Amino acid sequence: MPSQGHTVELGRDVPLKLDCGVKLGAFTVAYQTYGRLNEQKSNAVLVCHALSGDQYVASTHPLTGKPGWWHILVGPGRPLDPERFFIICANVLGGCMGTTGPASINPETGKPYGLTFPVITIADMVRAQAMLLDHLGVPDLFCVIGGSMGGMQTLQWAAMYPERVYTAIPIACAARHSAQNIAFHEVGRQAIMADPEWRAGEYSLHNTTPRAGLAVARMAAHITYLSEAALRRKFGRKLQNRSAFTYGFDADFEVESYLRHQGITFVERFDANSYLYITRAMDYFDMSADHGALANVFANTKVRFCLVSFTSDWLFTTWEMREIVHALNAAAADVSFVEIETDKGHDAFLLDEPELHATLSGFLNAAAERRGVAPAASP
Amino acid sequence: MPSQGHTVELGRDVPLKLDCGVKLGAFTVAYQTYGRLNEQKSNAVLVCHALSGDQYVASTHPLTGKPGWWHILVGPGRPLDPERFFIICANVLGGCMGTTGPASINPETGKPYGLTFPVITIADMVRAQAMLLDHLGVPDLFCVIGGSMGGMQTLQWAAMYPERVYTAIPIACAARHSAQNIAFHEVGRQAIMADPEWRAGEYSLHNTTPRAGLAVARMAAHITYLSEAALRRKFGRKLQNRSAFTYGFDADFEVESYLRHQGITFVERFDANSYLYITRAMDYFDMSADHGALANVFANTKVRFCLVSFTSDWLFTTWEMREIVHALNAAAADVSFVEIETDKGHDAFLLDEPELHATLSGFLNAAAERRGVAPAASP
Repeated sequence: MPSQGHTVELGRDVPLKLDCGVKLGAFTVAYQTYGRLNEQKSNAVLVCHALSGDQYVASTHPLTGKPGWWHILVGPGRPLDPERFFIICANVLGGCMGTTGPASINPETGKPYGLTFPVITIADMVRAQAMLLDHLGVPDLFCVIGGSMGGMQTLQWAAMYPERVYTAIPIACAARHSAQNIAFHEVGRQAIMADPEWRAGEYSLHNTTPRAGLAVARMAAHITYLSEAALRRKFGRKLQNRSAFTYGFDADFEVESYLRHQGITFVERFDANSYLYITRAMDYFDMSADHGALANVFANTKVRFCLVSFTSDWLFTTWEMREIVHALNAAAADVSFVEIETDKGHDAFLLDEPELHATLSGFLNAAAERRGVAPAASP
Repeated sequence: MPSQGHTVELGRDVPLKLDCGVKLGAFTVAYQTYGRLNEQKSNAVLVCHALSGDQYVASTHPLTGKPGWWHILVGPGRPLDPERFFIICANVLGGCMGTTGPASINPETGKPYGLTFPVITIADMVRAQAMLLDHLGVPDLFCVIGGSMGGMQTLQWAAMYPERVYTAIPIACAARHSAQNIAFHEVGRQAIMADPEWRAGEYSLHNTTPRAGLAVARMAAHITYLSEAALRRKFGRKLQNRSAFTYGFDADFEVESYLRHQGITFVERFDANSYLYITRAMDYFDMSADHGALANVFANTKVRFCLVSFTSDWLFTTWEMREIVHALNAAAADVSFVEIETDKGHDAFLLDEPELHATLSGFLNAAAERRGVAPAASP
C-alpha cells in the first residue's frame, strides 16, 4: 500500500520531560502515514503498536519483508481506510526502528546510549506522539487505537489528552500491568542480561549482540501470546519431520521447532536493550496509581470508547478489560465493550478475526458519521 | 523425623532396559525410608517426587536445610504415618541427589556422563523404582502417590505393574504432557543450553556451571507453578523495599525479587543437565501413545484410584485430570476424584491444603482397613 516513511527530530527547542525526571532534547521519531489529513483536520487516526511492533502497520517490513502487522485492518476497504482517514503510526520512544531508543547515538557522547538511556514510561511514549502530532499540524485525533501495549497507549492518550481524542479503541490490554505479566517480563530481561554478549548493555560497542538471551526472552513471551487451546489445536504433541522420538534434545516436537523459530527470527529485527526498556515501560503502567481510583482518571471524559477483549487471552484478560469498562461506566463515559469468542489467545488482535473487523467498522463508521468525516469513495 | 538415607547399586546382574534402547547396568538409586515393612508386607507406600523434588520427602534437605518437601503429609499423625506405613521415596533416575543421572560418573569412561547419559522416560524411572522394591523385598505397594511428575509416575506404576499396586493417588498431573507445557520446558532448556557455561553439557569438566541459564529456566517454570490470582494476592504491584520506581532494571517489584530468589536458590541444589533430562522425560510422557486409547491402558485394572486436582492449576488442569477419570470410568475402574477449590495454582499440592489432607486421610484409611493394615497406635 502507498505510504510515506518519515523521520522527524523533535524536542530540540522544548525538550520532552520524562516521568523519570530526565529532559530529553533532540530525539528522533520514525513514523509512517497513510492517506491525507482532510481540510477540517478531523480524520486523523493514530495507531499505537505493541511491544514488538513498529511503525510498519500496513507497509512491508524493511527487515523481514513481511506485510505490515495490521494490514488486515489498515488499507483500502478495511476498517481503517486511507481513502477516508489520515493514519499515523510511529515507532515508540525507546524502540529500535528509527525512533530514539537505547541503540541510538547519544548526541552528547557520540556513543550509543545503552543503559544510559533514561527509562521511559507509556506516558512518555504518548507525550512523544503528541509532539509528533504538533509537528504534523494535527490538532486532535478522530481515533487512537491499539492492542496490547498499543492499548495501554490508547488509554493513556484518553487520560492525558482527552481534548485531543474523539474516539479511543483499546484492545486486549489493561489499566495496570499484572504481577504475572511483570514476572514474565522479568524472565525475559534476566535471559537477556544473563547472556555474556549483553556486556552490561554495551554490546554494540563490542560488535556483538545477546542473540541467545533475546531469543529465550521472545520464546517465553511468545507462549503468553497464544492460548493452551490454540497450542493444542495447532501443534498438540505432533512430532517435527520425524515419526519417533530421537531421545535427545533436538526439537522433536513441532511446538519446540516453532518456538525456536520465533526466537531466532525475532533477534534479526529487534534490539535487546529496547526489549528491556519497553517491557519496563509496560511493567510501570498503572493508571490508577497516578490518578487514584480508575474512574477518576476518566471523570467527565467526552472521549467515546470502544473496548475489545478476547475470551482466550490470558495475558490481558477480559476480566481486566471489564475493570476498565466499569471505571468508564462509573465516570458516565460513552463506552462500548465487545468480548470476542476465540481460542487464539492474545495474538487474536493481530489475526483475521471477522468479529474484530466488524466491531471496528461499525464503531468507526458511526463515529465518523457523527463527526462528519466523509466516507471513502465507493470503488 | 527419624529416617534412613540409603543408596543401592542396581542393574549389575540384570541391566535396566531403557525405552531409548540403551541397557543401563550398575546404576545407583538414593532413597529415604520411614517406618517399617510389616510382617504381611502389606503396608509399603512409594512416594514419587516432582521435577525439582528429591528423596527428602519428610527429612531435612541436606543442601538447603529446609524441611522435607511433603512433611505436611508424611509424618507422625499425618495421612502417611510411618507408624502405620513403610514409606519409600527415591530420587528419580536422571536426578541429581544421589541416583544415577547425567552428573554421575560413567563407569566405562571414568568421566561424568553429561549428554552421553541416555535420555530416560517416566516409565524408565518407574522401572528403576520397581528394581528398588525388589531389592527391598517389597512385593507390592499398598499405595503409590505423587503430584505433578510424581503423579505421572503414579499413573505409570498403575499401568505397568497393576499387580503390584493396591491404591494409586495421582495428584495434579496428566496422562500426556501438553503442547503448552512442552513449550515452557523448551524455554527452560534453551535458557540452559544458551548459557556459555553449559559447555555442551560438559561444564563439570571445566569446573563451572550454567548458573544464569538454570536460574532463568527455574524462573520461567516457577510462574507456571503459581496462579495469576495467587500472584496478585501475594505480590500484586507491591514494590520491594522502596516507595517509588527506581527507573532502572533492579527488582523494583516484589514479584521480581521473589522470582530472582527462586532462580538463585535453585542453582544451589539442582544440576542443569538433570533439568534437561527430567523435563524431557515429562515431555515424552503420553500414556495413550503407547497403549492406544487411555481406557485401554487401565482395562480390567484392580487398582483403586484417587485423583486430586486444583481449580487454579493451569499447568495440569482439572480438565486433564478429568480425562483420566473418564478413561478409568470407561475401564470400570474403582476411582474417586476430588477437585479442590484453591487459588494457589499447581503448587497447591505441596502446600498445607486442609482439603487435600482430609481427602488423603479418608481414602488411605478406608483402603488400609480394607487391606487389614493396622492403624497407627494412638499417641
